[in-house]
Amino acid sequence: MTYPASPSAGVSLPVPAAELDAADPLARFRSRFLEPEDGQVVAYLDGNSLGRPLAETAGRMGEFIGGEWGNRLIRSWDESWMDEPIRLGDRLGDVVLGAGPGQALVADSTSVMLYKLLRAALDGRPGRDEIVVDRDNFPTDRFLVEGIAAERGASIRWIDADPKAGVRPGDVAAVVGRRTAVVLLSHVAYRSGYLADAPAITALVHDAGALMLWDLCHSAGSVPLHLDQWGVDLAVGCTYKYLNGGPGAPAFGYVRAGLQAELQQPLWGWMGAHDPFGMSEQYRPADGLRRFLTGTPPILAMQPLKHMVELIAEAGMDAVREKSVLLTERAIALADGLLAPLGVGLASPRDPARRGSHITIEHPRFREVTAALWERGVIPDFRPPYGLRIGLSPLSTSFAELDAGMAAVRDALLEVS
Amino acid sequence: MTYPASPSAGVSLPVPAAELDAADPLARFRSRFLEPEDGQVVAYLDGNSLGRPLAETAGRMGEFIGGEWGNRLIRSWDESWMDEPIRLGDRLGDVVLGAGPGQALVADSTSVMLYKLLRAALDGRPGRDEIVVDRDNFPTDRFLVEGIAAERGASIRWIDADPKAGVRPGDVAAVVGRRTAVVLLSHVAYRSGYLADAPAITALVHDAGALMLWDLCHSAGSVPLHLDQWGVDLAVGCTYKYLNGGPGAPAFGYVRAGLQAELQQPLWGWMGAHDPFGMSEQYRPADGLRRFLTGTPPILAMQPLKHMVELIAEAGMDAVREKSVLLTERAIALADGLLAPLGVGLASPRDPARRGSHITIEHPRFREVTAALWERGVIPDFRPPYGLRIGLSPLSTSFAELDAGMAAVRDALLEVS
Repeated sequence: MTYPASPSAGVSLPVPAAELDAADPLARFRSRFLEPEDGQVVAYLDGNSLGRPLAETAGRMGEFIGGEWGNRLIRSWDESWMDEPIRLGDRLGDVVLGAGPGQALVADSTSVMLYKLLRAALDGRPGRDEIVVDRDNFPTDRFLVEGIAAERGASIRWIDADPKAGVRPGDVAAVVGRRTAVVLLSHVAYRSGYLADAPAITALVHDAGALMLWDLCHSAGSVPLHLDQWGVDLAVGCTYKYLNGGPGAPAFGYVRAGLQAELQQPLWGWMGAHDPFGMSEQYRPADGLRRFLTGTPPILAMQPLKHMVELIAEAGMDAVREKSVLLTERAIALADGLLAPLGVGLASPRDPARRGSHITIEHPRFREVTAALWERGVIPDFRPPYGLRIGLSPLSTSFAELDAGMAAVRDALLEVS
Repeated sequence: MTYPASPSAGVSLPVPAAELDAADPLARFRSRFLEPEDGQVVAYLDGNSLGRPLAETAGRMGEFIGGEWGNRLIRSWDESWMDEPIRLGDRLGDVVLGAGPGQALVADSTSVMLYKLLRAALDGRPGRDEIVVDRDNFPTDRFLVEGIAAERGASIRWIDADPKAGVRPGDVAAVVGRRTAVVLLSHVAYRSGYLADAPAITALVHDAGALMLWDLCHSAGSVPLHLDQWGVDLAVGCTYKYLNGGPGAPAFGYVRAGLQAELQQPLWGWMGAHDPFGMSEQYRPADGLRRFLTGTPPILAMQPLKHMVELIAEAGMDAVREKSVLLTERAIALADGLLAPLGVGLASPRDPARRGSHITIEHPRFREVTAALWERGVIPDFRPPYGLRIGLSPLSTSFAELDAGMAAVRDALLEVS
């Protein structure tokens, strides 16, 4: 991908994009991603919705299909696949989640995994009948809580935080109490990009005797996580955003080791049983983390994620975060300089310490703008009613690409205005 | 793959394998599957557990990764992926299930899909509190029923059929009644290969006012199905066996059109909502089949299944069944001739009209035999306590391969005896 020169002319940016790219210690990783065909993509600013494929993924998928699948066939279940959900979970835990072994697994869709862990948490705190969730959380999170509350006779305690800010420790402290069973929050808010104070909120929730479940969809792979250190109880996340697992890639789940024996999820499938192939008439959950599995693990669909976790291990999450902050800082500077004069507002925190790896800008014409941009290969993400998300996946995005994309937003906005 | 000559010498078989292969109208399809590397596979007799990859799958997967994923990126959700679970379900319905459009979808694991449809069925028949299931059903089916009965305060009515025979209409008639909400049975029993009389049993269940849920894991792709014609209410099945979708490929679910509006499943994820991206605070299920979706559809993982459904469309399910019967008839003749003298028993129906596409034979030493066979590339499937399943995937298995496999079973049994 090549980018038009000087898109940020006239905007007060201390350093030209080319200079930042030249100094970027992660720049070499960009060539590890598959180059789109000419003209298909000018600037990809939606790695927070669907990460790009790695260049190696098609070849390695072919090797997998011919080898583990085609040559070893059913023998691969014995040889490696049976342990894959937890082996890959362990690797993800080490590289991305800040989790020791035996606490993370890869399985299901994010929504299904979230259902299982929410149910496990609620059922695991008898005598407590409230689920706390914020009203600006991602639809699937809110919907699942609604359904579970209805079927289990629980109540929902809504947090009404400022959507442009996010859920602060004080918002949580104000609602948790003796009735709270579990608190579900997104670590990085899907709209504003607000980065919640996970350790402080987790501690508050524990003080109330409740369980903390973090939705890490928008932080895993872009923000360093320290789940063990923060004392997090439960977490879920998806792997097709900053973890580049491909469309509909499986989710991950995290259950703190000390909690595994006392919690049980309700989807009693064979893979969560103590003896999946057993003749036993009665279900007995597996002793440890496996009890949170249900069906046959999606082995084929896990392959691209494996490749990306290794790439992140090479780069290191701290370096990823460092570039992420530089990218979102620049995106805000470009929004201020290029777009604010056209009536565009910023709906994301200005403090990088409270921000994930995307920013959201707002304008009433952004629906049309997005349609026009997509046609010309500039790809941000539209979120109703009028938000444009600029997602900046640090390992695959250059500063020049960001500049080109933001200039294209300005141009498209001028055209429709 | 090449096979040793005359493995069936001394056994009374009317036609040599070579002659059957030469006359096989489906023989040309065998070259459409990926050829394993030399020595890796001599005879694959476990396509009923994990189907072989198609030769075209690695290349088409590479094209998908570079194209729909790598070039179109997030735009593919708008362009095609959003409808993929139902579009592929429709195609599967037409080619494999005997189902008109808008009734089948591809999503989740089989166990998760089964949980959702069982819950929908039970919750959809208020005033009825019994789930009927047979004691020899696949573990995940029994376990899920157990869990659901426990959480919903329902009772389980067990059918105790002869495991070597199967569940007959009379067995079902004896237990269904006014308390029955839903009956869950496997169309082809995973151990014996017994093929249940789906239309007769479905009618019986309807007479009792209950819903019928068929587990089609071991019949989809090997036995012609006519779900619409049989009046089936609900069905699930997996796509990694005779549908060659790859390890852990997504499941399919079927919900009869007339039933969709009145049933609701409990995993209220965004993809099942009327407006997945909506700002609405409350979950409202999608009008039709989509309400049975939960999370982001596993698009990447659906690709190999797409290829196989087209292959089956070329071959035709009736031709597949015809070859399947010839294969299992020959497998039984070989078992009788080569293995019965060594004390091996047959645990499958002798009537081909009541048999799916695998047979099970039994011997106390089959665990060791399987281990020895796997090492030399002969791959049946061991099922405790001492069953050996000979799975015969009609499109990828030759008669010579079957003969070679059965002779190898004999040789290995002689070695360990």
